This record gives sequence, C-alpha cells and structure tokens, in this order.
Amino acid sequence: MQNFTSYNPTKVHFGKGVVEKLGVEAAQYGRKALIVIGRGSVKTNGVLDAVFKQLETAGVTHVLFEGIKSNPIYQDVDSAIAVAEAFGAEMVVAVGGGSVVDSAKAVAIGVGAGHSVWDFYTRTAPAPTKGLPLLCVLTLAATGTEQNRNSVIQNDADGRKMGYSCDAMYPKVSFLDPEYTVSVPANYTAYGISDLISHVLEQYVEPTDSPLSNYIATDIIKLAFEHGRKLMADLTDYDARANILWLSTMALNGTLSAGKRGGDWGVHGLEHSLSVLYDIPHGAGLSIIYPSWIRAFRTELEPKLDFMAKRVLSPTATGDDFLNELEGFYKEINSPTRLSEANIPVADKAKILENFALNKVVGGFYKMDEAKRAEILDLAWGE
Amino acid sequence: MQNFTSYNPTKVHFGKGVVEKLGVEAAQYGRKALIVIGRGSVKTNGVLDAVFKQLETAGVTHVLFEGIKSNPIYQDVDSAIAVAEAFGAEMVVAVGGGSVVDSAKAVAIGVGAGHSVWDFYTRTAPAPTKGLPLLCVLTLAATGTEQNRNSVIQNDADGRKMGYSCDAMYPKVSFLDPEYTVSVPANYTAYGISDLISHVLEQYVEPTDSPLSNYIATDIIKLAFEHGRKLMADLTDYDARANILWLSTMALNGTLSAGKRGGDWGVHGLEHSLSVLYDIPHGAGLSIIYPSWIRAFRTELEPKLDFMAKRVLSPTATGDDFLNELEGFYKEINSPTRLSEANIPVADKAKILENFALNKVVGGFYKMDEAKRAEILDLAWGE
Repeated sequence: MQNFTSYNPTKVHFGKGVVEKLGVEAAQYGRKALIVIGRGSVKTNGVLDAVFKQLETAGVTHVLFEGIKSNPIYQDVDSAIAVAEAFGAEMVVAVGGGSVVDSAKAVAIGVGAGHSVWDFYTRTAPAPTKGLPLLCVLTLAATGTEQNRNSVIQNDADGRKMGYSCDAMYPKVSFLDPEYTVSVPANYTAYGISDLISHVLEQYVEPTDSPLSNYIATDIIKLAFEHGRKLMADLTDYDARANILWLSTMALNGTLSAGKRGGDWGVHGLEHSLSVLYDIPHGAGLSIIYPSWIRAFRTELEPKLDFMAKRVLSPTATGDDFLNELEGFYKEINSPTRLSEANIPVADKAKILENFALNKVVGGFYKMDEAKRAEILDLAWGE
Repeated sequence: MQNFTSYNPTKVHFGKGVVEKLGVEAAQYGRKALIVIGRGSVKTNGVLDAVFKQLETAGVTHVLFEGIKSNPIYQDVDSAIAVAEAFGAEMVVAVGGGSVVDSAKAVAIGVGAGHSVWDFYTRTAPAPTKGLPLLCVLTLAATGTEQNRNSVIQNDADGRKMGYSCDAMYPKVSFLDPEYTVSVPANYTAYGISDLISHVLEQYVEPTDSPLSNYIATDIIKLAFEHGRKLMADLTDYDARANILWLSTMALNGTLSAGKRGGDWGVHGLEHSLSVLYDIPHGAGLSIIYPSWIRAFRTELEPKLDFMAKRVLSPTATGDDFLNELEGFYKEINSPTRLSEANIPVADKAKILENFALNKVVGGFYKMDEAKRAEILDLAWGE
C-alpha cells in the first residue's frame, strides 16, 4: 500500500425527502444564498420550488443564476460570481447535475478573488485558501462531484477543458434524493452510468497494490452493471436509481484512492477533448474511448482486467471477457462506443490530435504519445 | 436502501512516517496540548519521542497524562480532564490504542463541561456541542475509533460499560503508521483482528438491503482472513500490518453503514459485560461470543451467512461453511472461542446474566431476552 490521506468533510444526506433538511443546514451559513441552476428543468419538476421553500423557512433570501450548460464554461461562472458579489451572497446552493455543481464550486472559490475564476484552473493564480460554503441538491447520478473537491470547466475560445481541485471546493452538505433523478431521460441516465464506471476504472487500472480499494472497485463495477440494467429496463425503479446514485458518489469520493497514487485519468483527458470540440455528453465520450483505450493497452492491463473479470463475471472469466462485457454493456444501455455514433468524422483526426496535444493528454501510468493517441482514435473509428 | 447520512470529517494520514505531519497539523489548533497515553509502551518504543519532537518543532507545549488502562474507566478520564483544565490545554493528543483514543475523546468533550464525563455516557447530561480538537497517533489496529465519533468507557464500581457518540468526538486528524503497530505482540494483534471482524459483522448482519455496503463487508472479512493469516505468520510483515490497519479503520468509519439502519451490536453488548466483569480484552471476548451468537440465531441469519460464505469462500459454500471458517480462524490466530479459555466458570452464569440485564443487552435486530442470553452463554461454555 502507498501512503495516502483519507479526508472528506462533505456531509451527504441520502434518500427520499432529504431536501427537507436543507433549511436547517443552510441557516448555519448565513442569510443570503446564490442559487445556481442549469437550463431550467428543475424549475418545472418541483425541485427548485422545494429548495425555495426550505430557504424561505430558514430565513435565507436568494438570487437565482440560471443557464449553466453541460460542458460548462468559465464565462458563465464569472458572470455568476459578479452576481454573487453584487448580492453579497454568503453561500452558494447548486441545484442540478455535475455541470451545475462544478460551476457552483468555481463560484464558491471565485467570489472575492478579484480575478477570473479561469486563472485558478490554468494555475496562473495561487490556490484559494477559502471559499463560500456550498450546498448541493443533486438531480443526476454521474460525476461524484457532490462529495469531492474536484471541478471541471472549459474555455470554448481556445479549446481547453481544465480540472481543478482544492479543499475549499468540498461542498458543506449535499442532498441526494434518488427520486430527484427519476425524471432523467434514458440517454443521460446511461451517460451517467458510463461516467461512474469510468471513475472506477481510472483509479482501478493503476498498477499499484491496495487490496481493499481494488476489491471495492470491482464491487462498484459489478453493481453498476446489475443496477444499470435494472434501471434502463425501468427508469422509475427507485431502488435502482438509489443504487446508481450511491455508486456514482462512492466512485469518486476518495474511497477508491486509499493506498494508491491517484489513478491514471488518461481516458478522461482524451474525452475532454471530444467534449470541448463536439459538445458531446462526457459519459458518451467516455464509453466511446474506454474500449479502444483498453485495446491499445491490452497487454499492460492484463493483470488488472483478469482480476476484474474474475470478481465481476466468474472465477473462470478472462480479461477479454471483461472487455467484451464492458463494451456490450455500453451498447445495451445505448451509450456510444464508436466515434461515428457521435458523428465525429475521420477527417477530423488531425484536429482532435491537436487538441489532445494542447491539453497535454498523456495519462498517469499508461503513457500516451502522439502515435498512441492516434492508435486509440483509429480503434474508436473502427468496425 | 434506507435513508442515511454519510459524514466523516476526520482526516487520516496513513503510511510510513506520517507522524512527521503532526507538528504542522497541531500548530493549527493552539500552543498547549494534553497528551494522553496508556501504561507506557509508547515511552520505550520511540513513538512518544517522535510526538514530542513534532510538538516541540511546532511550538506546542504539553503535559503528559499517563496510565489509561485497557477497558478504560471514567475516573481516569475525569482526572485527565482536571489536568487539562489546570494546564489550559487547547488540544488533546492521544498516543496509543483504542482505549487511549476513547479516553482522549472523552477528555475532549469533558473539558469545561463542569461535571463528570460519565454523565455524558449515562445520558444524564445534555450532549456536548463542542470539544477540544483531538489528534490521534494510533499504535494498535483494532477498534476503528481513529476515524469515528464513538467512545466506550466503563464504571468499575457499578459494572456498567457505556458507549457514547457525538460529532465533537471526531478526531481532527489521525496518524496511522503501520510500523507503529509492528511491536504489538501476537495476542493483542489477534484480538485486534477479532475486533475489526466483529465491527463488520455487527453492521453486515442487519437484515436490510444495501448492496454496496454488504459487498464491502464481505471484502473486509475476506481480506481480514487473508492478511490476518499472513500477519500471524510474521508479525513484522509491513504489508500485512498496513492492510489490517486500514481494514480496521474502514470497518467502522461509516462506509459499512451507508443505506442501513445502524447495525445490531448485540454481540458487543454481551462482550462488554465480560470485559467489565473479568477485564478480558475486548477482541478476545468478541471471538468467544460471536460463534455462539451465530448458532443461537442460525435460522434467522441464514441468508446473510449464505451470501457471506459465497463471497468470502466459494460460489458453492454455505452458511455453515462460513461459521466453521470464522471459528476456525479465531482458533488459528489463538483468539479464544469458549468462556473456559478465559477462565470464566459456569458457576458465574447468574452473575453474568445479571450484568447483561443491568446493561440492557437486547440487540438491535436479533432480539435477546433472558432465555436467549442464557442460551448463548451455554453455547459459549459448550464443547
């Protein structure tokens, strides 16, 4: 086992009706909240009304910032920061999915910084030591951002998509009601499952030995397959929604990194370029890249794939069996596995490779040079 | 899945040499520390010297409170509180095993309370809303107290052993260096393994459905058997020490209670009576009680034992196979499985049953009346 630090101060209230705890939690942090939402679905399904009611009961006034898009951009964050500063917000309340929460995290550290929030992400400003308290009401099971210190936003102007992590971005409290995810349509439900699976794989494939973390990684994959299938068969299945939601949180809240060195994250790097260039959903890009990335590193990954196969499938299953199961699962839930399915033409190869280089996509343990990245793209156009 | 809250603010630094981070962490909390230790082994093996050096470098002065015994008593805690108050301690630093940490947690909430700490445990005083910051340097893998809000102390005068839990007892930081546990002798190493296994079982046997928590429970048991055997074969095996240490933390830091209702804890109740009456090590008492408790509830436990057997042993293993494996493992590591091994005579039956009644030992899900408790005792005297 590698040395590591286990630390995660975010409190998660999980289950039916947990938004009823929001008022009491919010009242601890002040009287003025900036609420951040996306393109408005929370306005029509009752979620935002429930949040309003909680804040009102707690005596917390609010301003609403609406319009965060998926694959969120730093310009929207800077706008929200200006609103928060003008209002004198004492806390940020995110109501939405991963893009909204990641943007709200950026707002939390950007208020009072005196510069664009993008400067944190590009490492041109020193790391923040504090931020506004952040509360999250999650409406999509996918990224795990609700219980971690990470955020990803992008700059459409120059094609960079950057991740940033700091302790000030841990939410104070997240409210995870599986019923709030029931209205997510089939395609985004599938992309969320793809996303959580990818977070497990990025950490699991690291060739270091941390037995319990590796075991739990295989558990999450096995249960994601099982409950993912149940959920796609019945999008209103509460129990399946609850399992997928908790799996997505556990996939990236530090549990899997204990005793390890931080994961590979090469596939995420490759996917970020697809999202920034083509605005495709992150989870869809991940299911396109993963099978091809595994094929490109098939030899190096053998022990990891073999162990995963035996734990997830059967005592006699092989690494190839796992790869086939993974790709078959993506197809079964209609998450794409080839670039052509996302209408990304072979003619764009040079452009995509250029973006990989711009974003310095090399991977942590399985190193990719230009030729390797091209090989993975070719595999992802294959068949 | 049941509604639940996932929250654990304790930071754990894990691995070789992590005590070197203690000075920087301590300096955040003030300039005066009360150090709490047990019967002195940390004074001779270099651990306490390393802590002194860290505090000195950080400009933190200290007073040393020595003499916490295993199965710690509230009177020692009250004495330590008086010393802390007289010194003006701004933090508590625990250096030792579970008894020392549990006592230090009690000191942390007792300073300034104006009454005996025992009043918290007996629920005759209102719950504390704050406590002194607590830092823990752990020297024994066993109880998991290093990353949770629980503490157990006892009153020898009236035979009560009480658990108490509150947010103010979360340590701020715990330092877990597997090398600090290498000098633990074989018997206490075994009792620690028995203790961690019992924490998993108490939560796992709860007949509610939380798939990931149940999977992880089986992982910890499987790895505790595997690394427990390695460790008992070579007490200096760093990797085995590291695994057992992390398993013991994960067994009781909230991971296994997600989606569940809090566990059964009937076996712990029974064991606490043995510890308070006979001063036997907690882990030894647990390995005596568990096989008999399982036999007494064999029918009700069937689905849980069967699932555990299939995950830990083989796809064709049965609940009885798991029970045999568990009991065999205890024997293999020389942790007792019968009351006679702890020199507890059948003649004491009425006295023990009286203490069970005094401490209201009934169990959470598998309810025990007087007859059931007597049946379990008889089984534990059996063979």
